Amino acid sequence: MSTITILGAGNMTRGIATRALAGGYDVQILARDESEAGTLANELTGSVSTGAFSTPIAGDVVVLALPYDAALSVAGELRDALNGKVVVDITNPVDFATFDRLVTPDDSSAAQEIQKAIPAAKVVKAFNTTFAGTLVAGAVDGQKLDVLVAADDAEAKAAVVSLVEAGGMRALDAGPLKRAHQLEGVGFLHMALQGQLGNTWSTGVKVVGA
Amino acid sequence: MSTITILGAGNMTRGIATRALAGGYDVQILARDESEAGTLANELTGSVSTGAFSTPIAGDVVVLALPYDAALSVAGELRDALNGKVVVDITNPVDFATFDRLVTPDDSSAAQEIQKAIPAAKVVKAFNTTFAGTLVAGAVDGQKLDVLVAADDAEAKAAVVSLVEAGGMRALDAGPLKRAHQLEGVGFLHMALQGQLGNTWSTGVKVVGA
Repeated sequence: MSTITILGAGNMTRGIATRALAGGYDVQILARDESEAGTLANELTGSVSTGAFSTPIAGDVVVLALPYDAALSVAGELRDALNGKVVVDITNPVDFATFDRLVTPDDSSAAQEIQKAIPAAKVVKAFNTTFAGTLVAGAVDGQKLDVLVAADDAEAKAAVVSLVEAGGMRALDAGPLKRAHQLEGVGFLHMALQGQLGNTWSTGVKVVGA
Repeated sequence: MSTITILGAGNMTRGIATRALAGGYDVQILARDESEAGTLANELTGSVSTGAFSTPIAGDVVVLALPYDAALSVAGELRDALNGKVVVDITNPVDFATFDRLVTPDDSSAAQEIQKAIPAAKVVKAFNTTFAGTLVAGAVDGQKLDVLVAADDAEAKAAVVSLVEAGGMRALDAGPLKRAHQLEGVGFLHMALQGQLGNTWSTGVKVVGA
């Protein structure tokens, strides 16, 4: 069976791991503090192993479930181990001090910056518009979650689309990796709208009517 | 009763006029070719007047229902007549030759470029993520349309929010006018996804679950 490795042990790891396990994947959770990976694993049902960032990566697909700055630095740190891997960037590089801008260059995106840090990996943008709670629930408002996926490598994109669909969600192909710029705009907006939507962080961005 | 002036006589004018009329507004349609405004007006039910771009603008809210390049040039052409008006930019400045980029600067947006051309008007970004057919229908997939609205001027934004709500849609406040950069990213993605969604152009982008 395929294994998904997730780096980080926070809410987004809980969400993505829940969907991957529901889809029949084995999950490996690696965290800076291995005990946090263990604590999260104890909440989950299915085939879950844990380790530290130094533990050999078991999955062909590796999700960076970390805030943008940490995702970028951990990707660089594990650069050799990520060679040839499908690396999923889920981040929204919001300037949390102002909540009024993204910290990435105007002509780039978090996904493209991470790709530059690990040029021998195949970076895929996904899961940046789906909140953790909706991933755990596996649905929003009784509807399938939409997961927008952008990547340059077709096989890498297909691997993430398979994960999305196995987990009971709908994958929408947003195009090449540079389209992450627009996807991160969607993620930023979705976060910025929470105040007027009751701050539940349980909403989903969907393309409805098709 | 309030009057909405719409510049252009294409599909988006049909959609926005239909919603405005449903909301009890008077609608004035002005087109380069006045006869096209008349033809469209004949399809609509309610208080509709027509004219050319040189006809005095009746509305306090003026919608530029034109492709981006035309919207920018017509705004400049009517600069004096638009002084003090609420001007609604609905465009998606997609490079239609490649469908792979936006033609606006990386650090700007169509709305901001139009604001520069008419500095004494109050530009509001709205309706760039809602397709014409769904505006005519007034709903998508049995749900209210979401209209994302961005503007710097609070009264101008409120006028557009009132129009949206009167027309039976949900307004979401996306923030200041510069957030048009992200809204235009949403519009671009929504258009780019049509191929894999059956090319019906009858879908809607919604925040569901709230």
